[in-house]
Amino acid sequence: MRTQVGIVGAGPAGLMLSHLLHLRGIASVVVECRSRDHVERRVRAGVLEQGSVDLLREAGLGERLAREGARHEGIELRFGGEAYRVPMTELTGRAITVYGQQEVVKDLVAARLAAGGEILFEVDDVNLHGLDSESPLVRFRHHGREVELHCDFVVGCDGSHGVSRGAVPDGVLTSYERSYPFAWLGVLAAAAPAVDELVYARHERGFALYSLRSPEISRLYLQVDPAEKLEEWPDERIWSELRRRLETVPGWTVNTGPILEKSITPMRSLVVEPMQWQRLFLAGDAVHIVPPTGAKGMNLALADVALLGEAFADWYAYGRDGLLRDYSRTALRRVWRAQHFSWWMTSMLHRLDSHDPYEQQLQLSTLRYVASSRSYATSLAENYVGLPSI
Amino acid sequence: MRTQVGIVGAGPAGLMLSHLLHLRGIASVVVECRSRDHVERRVRAGVLEQGSVDLLREAGLGERLAREGARHEGIELRFGGEAYRVPMTELTGRAITVYGQQEVVKDLVAARLAAGGEILFEVDDVNLHGLDSESPLVRFRHHGREVELHCDFVVGCDGSHGVSRGAVPDGVLTSYERSYPFAWLGVLAAAAPAVDELVYARHERGFALYSLRSPEISRLYLQVDPAEKLEEWPDERIWSELRRRLETVPGWTVNTGPILEKSITPMRSLVVEPMQWQRLFLAGDAVHIVPPTGAKGMNLALADVALLGEAFADWYAYGRDGLLRDYSRTALRRVWRAQHFSWWMTSMLHRLDSHDPYEQQLQLSTLRYVASSRSYATSLAENYVGLPSI
Repeated sequence: MRTQVGIVGAGPAGLMLSHLLHLRGIASVVVECRSRDHVERRVRAGVLEQGSVDLLREAGLGERLAREGARHEGIELRFGGEAYRVPMTELTGRAITVYGQQEVVKDLVAARLAAGGEILFEVDDVNLHGLDSESPLVRFRHHGREVELHCDFVVGCDGSHGVSRGAVPDGVLTSYERSYPFAWLGVLAAAAPAVDELVYARHERGFALYSLRSPEISRLYLQVDPAEKLEEWPDERIWSELRRRLETVPGWTVNTGPILEKSITPMRSLVVEPMQWQRLFLAGDAVHIVPPTGAKGMNLALADVALLGEAFADWYAYGRDGLLRDYSRTALRRVWRAQHFSWWMTSMLHRLDSHDPYEQQLQLSTLRYVASSRSYATSLAENYVGLPSI
Repeated sequence: MRTQVGIVGAGPAGLMLSHLLHLRGIASVVVECRSRDHVERRVRAGVLEQGSVDLLREAGLGERLAREGARHEGIELRFGGEAYRVPMTELTGRAITVYGQQEVVKDLVAARLAAGGEILFEVDDVNLHGLDSESPLVRFRHHGREVELHCDFVVGCDGSHGVSRGAVPDGVLTSYERSYPFAWLGVLAAAAPAVDELVYARHERGFALYSLRSPEISRLYLQVDPAEKLEEWPDERIWSELRRRLETVPGWTVNTGPILEKSITPMRSLVVEPMQWQRLFLAGDAVHIVPPTGAKGMNLALADVALLGEAFADWYAYGRDGLLRDYSRTALRRVWRAQHFSWWMTSMLHRLDSHDPYEQQLQLSTLRYVASSRSYATSLAENYVGLPSI
C-alpha cells in the first residue's frame, strides 16, 4: 500500500488532518486500533472554541454542527456562596459551541468515507519504520494480514499512550510533565440541564462542573481522589455530592435523572518537544495533555492539524518545507498558552489538600478578582473562547 | 497625658493617620521607639500608587512630592532575551510616582510638628492596657520617665514586630502566612540610572530589579538565598551579578557607581484577621506583609489609615460607629487583592529551585502572555497603579 501521508489514530486530530489533506488533493490513509463504533461513541470533550467551529465550517463540516451544536456566550463561576457570569462574547466578541467530540468524529468519519477516504479500523501491532528516510513505512496487521503502508510522511495522532511518540529515538524529545493530586468523576445523565451555560464551582468539598450536551442530557463532573473507585460512587452519592457543591445559590437545584455513563479520569499536564522528528509529525494528545478544566484538549488537536494541513499543502504544491520545519515551534506557542490557562483554571477551582489557609484565601481572592475586574475576566474569556492567532 | 487617638509607630501609617485626624480636628499622640533621625533615613519602598499620591496631595502634602517625585507611566519586563514595556498609563489612565518612603515620612513629620502635633520618639517599654474598656491606655517610658497616655482608641501602626498585635488576647486573631525560599539583596548606589522606568527581570540566575530614586541614585535588587550574608556580596560581585541578569538586551548596560547602602530582606506574606479588637485598630505592616515585588506595602498602609481617618471622623462628629465596625472587612478586600497580586508577580519573576521544568515553562508562558494580551497586561497594570476602589 502506498499513500502520501500515513496517519496513525482516528480521533479528531487524525481524521481532521485526513479531511484537510483531501480538500487539498493530498492522499492519506488513517489506521486505528479501535473499532469505528468505539471511536464514534466514546464520550470526551464537548467544548469547541470559535476557531475550531470556523475550521470545521470552512472544511465543509458545519452543517450538523450548526443545527445541533449549542452556542454559549458565557460561563458561570460559583464560589463562597457567590455566582458570577463571565460574559465571554460581550468581552471578546467570540463564543464557544457545545458539541461532543464523538459528534465531531462521526461527522469526520462520514465525510471521509463519502469522499472515498481510507480509514482502517481495528488494526493491530502498528509500528513505524524508516522515519529518517524519504519513504517511511507504517506496518500493521489488518483482518489478520500483515500490511505495509509506504508514505512520504507519517503523522502520529494516536494519543498519549500511542506508539508514534515512542518511535522517536531516545534523547530527541524533552517531556514537561505535572500530575495533579485529584481526578474527575464524569457523569452523563438523562436529565434536562438546570442551566443553559456551564457552571464551574469551587467548593470546600472540591470542584464541580455542571455542563450539558443537549436539552435532555447533562454532563456533570466532580473532583474526586484519584485512588477512588467507581464502585464507591453509586448514583445517589453522586447526586448528593453534586447538590452539596452546586446548590450554593438560593433557589437553584440540580436536575437529576438516570445516569447513562460514569468514569474517573486522572488529571495531568504533559508537553513533549519538539513535535516533529525527521518525517514523523506528532499532533494532539500524542504530544500534549491538559487537565480538562480549560476545555482545551480537542481544540489544541484541531489547531495542530490545521497547521499541518497548510504545511503539507505548501510542500506538495510548491516543494516548500518552511511551514513543515516551523510546525513544532508554531504549534508550541498555542500549546503552552493552553497549558498555562488550563493550569490556572485548575488551580483556581480545585480543592488541594496540600493548600494551607493562606493559599485557600489566595484562591478566593483570584475568583473575586475575576468577578470584579473587566480586564481579568477578559483574560479568562479570551483563553476560553480561544485566542485567534498566537 | 490624654488624647483622643493613641498611635503606636511613626512610620507612614501612624504619621499619616495622625495628620488625617488633625485635619478633621481629632487629637492624637504618636509614640515611636526609634529616633526621628532613624525613621527619616531608613530606606524602604519607593513606589506610590496613583491613589496614594492623590491622598497625600489632598492632605496638603503634595508640594515636595510634585517637585521631586518622578511620575512613571510604564514598567519593563525582561525575560528569555525579550523586553516588554507594560504601558500602564495607556492601559489604565493612571500612573505611579517614585518617591522614597523616607521622604513621605520626612514630609509627614514636618507637617505634624509644624501643626503642633505630638510625636514622642525614642520611647521604651510600650504596652497597651484596657483595650476592651472605653478608655484604653498606652504606657511607656520616655526620657527615663513612666508615661501613661489615656485615649479613646489605640491604633497599632508598629509593624510586624511591634507590640500592638500582641496585645490582642489569644484566639481572637487568625494568621495567614507564607514564606518564600529567597530574599532580596537591596542596593542604593550613587549611579545615574540607565533607565527611566523600573525594569523587572526574570533570569535563570534569579530575579533582578533595576529601579531608581533620582537622576543620580539607582536602587537595585537581586534575588539571593535567604541564608546568604552581606559579607558574601562585595560590591564587585553585586555589579557583576546585576549585569548578568539585566544585560540581556543588546547594547544596554547597567550604570555603576559607589554603593551607599546594602541589605538583605527575607520575603514573606502575612495577613492577620480581623484588623481590630475592641478599641484597638491595627494598620499597615502590623497586620499584613507582602513581598516587595508588587510595590504594595506602603500603599496598603496608607489605604488602611485613609479608611480609619474617615471612620474616626464619623465617630467623633456624629457618634456613628458603622465605618469603624466595617474597617477590617473593608480594608481586607484591598489587602487580599494586593496579596494575590504580590504573590503573582513574585511567582512569575523569581527563580525557584523547587520548580520543575514544567513550571519553568509555565512561568515563561505567563510572561509571554502579559506581553501579548492587552487584557492580561491591563490586569497587571491596574494592580500596579492601584485599584481605585475595591
